[in-house]
Amino acid sequence: MDAQKFEVKAYPEMWESLGMDVPRFEKARVMLGEAYTKTYLSQAKRPAKMAYFDAMISEIHGGRVKELLAAKAEGRPVVGTFCVYIPEEIVIAAGGICVGLCGGSQGSVPDAEKILPRNICPMVKSAFGFKVGRICPYFQAVDFVYGETTCDAKKKTWEILDRLVPTYVMEIPQMKKARDKALWIEEVKDFKAKVEEVAGKTISEAELAAAIKVMNDKRRALQRLTALRGASPAPISGKDALLIEQIAFYDEPVRFAAKVNELCDELEVRVKKGEGVIDAGAPRVMISGTPMALPNWKVHNLVETAGAVIVNEESCIGTRYFKDLIDENLPGMDAQLEVLTDRYMKIDCSCFTPNDERIVQIAKEYQSSKAQGIIHYSLQFCHTYNIEEIKVRELCERENIPYLSIESDYSPEDVGQLQTRIEAFLEQIRG
Amino acid sequence: MDAQKFEVKAYPEMWESLGMDVPRFEKARVMLGEAYTKTYLSQAKRPAKMAYFDAMISEIHGGRVKELLAAKAEGRPVVGTFCVYIPEEIVIAAGGICVGLCGGSQGSVPDAEKILPRNICPMVKSAFGFKVGRICPYFQAVDFVYGETTCDAKKKTWEILDRLVPTYVMEIPQMKKARDKALWIEEVKDFKAKVEEVAGKTISEAELAAAIKVMNDKRRALQRLTALRGASPAPISGKDALLIEQIAFYDEPVRFAAKVNELCDELEVRVKKGEGVIDAGAPRVMISGTPMALPNWKVHNLVETAGAVIVNEESCIGTRYFKDLIDENLPGMDAQLEVLTDRYMKIDCSCFTPNDERIVQIAKEYQSSKAQGIIHYSLQFCHTYNIEEIKVRELCERENIPYLSIESDYSPEDVGQLQTRIEAFLEQIRG
Repeated sequence: MDAQKFEVKAYPEMWESLGMDVPRFEKARVMLGEAYTKTYLSQAKRPAKMAYFDAMISEIHGGRVKELLAAKAEGRPVVGTFCVYIPEEIVIAAGGICVGLCGGSQGSVPDAEKILPRNICPMVKSAFGFKVGRICPYFQAVDFVYGETTCDAKKKTWEILDRLVPTYVMEIPQMKKARDKALWIEEVKDFKAKVEEVAGKTISEAELAAAIKVMNDKRRALQRLTALRGASPAPISGKDALLIEQIAFYDEPVRFAAKVNELCDELEVRVKKGEGVIDAGAPRVMISGTPMALPNWKVHNLVETAGAVIVNEESCIGTRYFKDLIDENLPGMDAQLEVLTDRYMKIDCSCFTPNDERIVQIAKEYQSSKAQGIIHYSLQFCHTYNIEEIKVRELCERENIPYLSIESDYSPEDVGQLQTRIEAFLEQIRG
Repeated sequence: MDAQKFEVKAYPEMWESLGMDVPRFEKARVMLGEAYTKTYLSQAKRPAKMAYFDAMISEIHGGRVKELLAAKAEGRPVVGTFCVYIPEEIVIAAGGICVGLCGGSQGSVPDAEKILPRNICPMVKSAFGFKVGRICPYFQAVDFVYGETTCDAKKKTWEILDRLVPTYVMEIPQMKKARDKALWIEEVKDFKAKVEEVAGKTISEAELAAAIKVMNDKRRALQRLTALRGASPAPISGKDALLIEQIAFYDEPVRFAAKVNELCDELEVRVKKGEGVIDAGAPRVMISGTPMALPNWKVHNLVETAGAVIVNEESCIGTRYFKDLIDENLPGMDAQLEVLTDRYMKIDCSCFTPNDERIVQIAKEYQSSKAQGIIHYSLQFCHTYNIEEIKVRELCERENIPYLSIESDYSPEDVGQLQTRIEAFLEQIRG
């Protein structure tokens, strides 16, 4: 794609019809296009099949939103979420669309801070601010939002967000005992009932089975991409992989999986030829921690600009979203919901206590990605990841893994300091 | 009591036997005595019956600790807790002692910050630091700690605290549906099993009934004190009432209730005579929000030094701890555990979503305490109270209640700024 010509397409009439603040959003659109051009299109040796994902960004506020509106016009539910614990399979089974909502930009934070406390997670503030400022077409298009109770800040913000958009909440327990599963499965059933109510239909076993297959296929495609990043030299940049993971939260899942597989075909050829986006000698870094919502490319950009490559995201935006599949062959709605819940219970978010399986998983991904160091990334004021970071640090000390811990928000203020720390960390890897 | 002679008594040999850092603790002891003399003994018109509570502070690191050690020597369990959701009745029924652990002092925060993140709740940091620094005799004396999952910071800190002292965790759900109660009651049963294991005995129905009565009596005494503070002029300072509420968490409950009732007898005489600790014209302020662990007297001291009186604490240190009683007349262990759990489920902590009954409760306490303004007090980085503060503010706007929101930690750094804000708030009440 010609970097000079890239732009995020404008759909002012559609935005107007969605009740958006169009003049303000127009500025955000131009800024996103410029940031994308600078951060993404400047990269050397990009795989040709990234063109689809470039186009997805170009149409982020247009083409995909139109698909949502078309679904709504057909009476299909459109559900907004903020967390990998909300089972998308159920929405897909009802013929609906599940989208992760906007929440990765500093631009909407001041809107939120007029209402919410300043010292909470930037992702929560950003998401809330997008709705307050009417500058996220997805927020404007959804039938309802399904929040969850995975952290203090989100749990309490949903109460306020509900005033602006209908917001339901799934109670995610804090432990993983049998009694927690008993509660959880009831919450999943409530979610199903709500989706069915909006869809005006009952989900059948066959529909749920098909949806489980769709989501498994999508997750398998992302697993395949992750495995290919384990090659040396890395066949794709961390920035591009992160972008794909971010797009996974709002793209149509069947098409998305096909496009990721097409890209993987191309990467396989690269790997066989020993070709990479960067020299085999470049430091290989794994990210572990909190999610990076679009367009939060801050750490990846700093690390790769400094000459390293990111090969794995142990994060809700990364492997935590797609490492686990659901058994596709169980008959009966009860059995399906049971294995579905089991799959979601495997997600190793720090909101659980204890959550030591995550530490085991980090060690495993460090091996499989052939990383040479770990950066723990925590969104500011994220207490659970921030405290669990102690155990990640201890793992790295035990295993002699070069380690850097970053806590950051969406503002550009700490970029200089982060750059210095990241460069020192990469020097440590280079030895 | 002669202010010149007050001191927190030293028991260096006992402290040594508890594995404490004695030289360091000796300094803390002297500082606490000085702070208490300055903050408490300087007050005019104190009720004579405060002498018992002065003595409790004087013996805080001695007499009461000896009672704990004597109980342990008899094989009675001594359980440390941090939260009003842990059912003390069960510990008392087993012949044991339940104590709220240290967590109200800046002095232990630097110890914690060597391990924990800085930007979490000062109470959590302080508590953890007391154990790390070996400067809390209660922490050293307990058989085990029972934590809970009421906030992100506590939930994850227990995992690390468990390395220093055996720490069990009660899962407190995040909603109050039937399925939450089902989970909760199982957690209460687990707690009972743990206490019974340490006590080496099974709790009988009669023992639990007696313990429920003991705790109800203690709570009734605190309710009586709260009701008396509704008189104008206020018969007792907010500082003294707060102190009593703080001592409630570690004193022997039967003796404590008797002493609170003796004090209330004295206050009743004052009220009948129309006598107070301060002029009837002094602004009456209610505190709402997060707990104030001993010796956190910061806000009360500022408010009362500025010529007002605090008449209510809608807080875990205040009414939230004692507003609800348990039905004493139910036969059968299952029925007893059921009503016990029901009672704990009434506690309106902001960790629940939604928690609108707290807003109703605040309005009720504002009326009954005859307050003229509300200060919302939130410990720094306490996301749930900080966000729920939005609804408290809205209540005050709706009802034309003078309102001030404070977020503070244990450091003295913001005292000047708080003083200015509190004085302006009191001017608003004075009109």
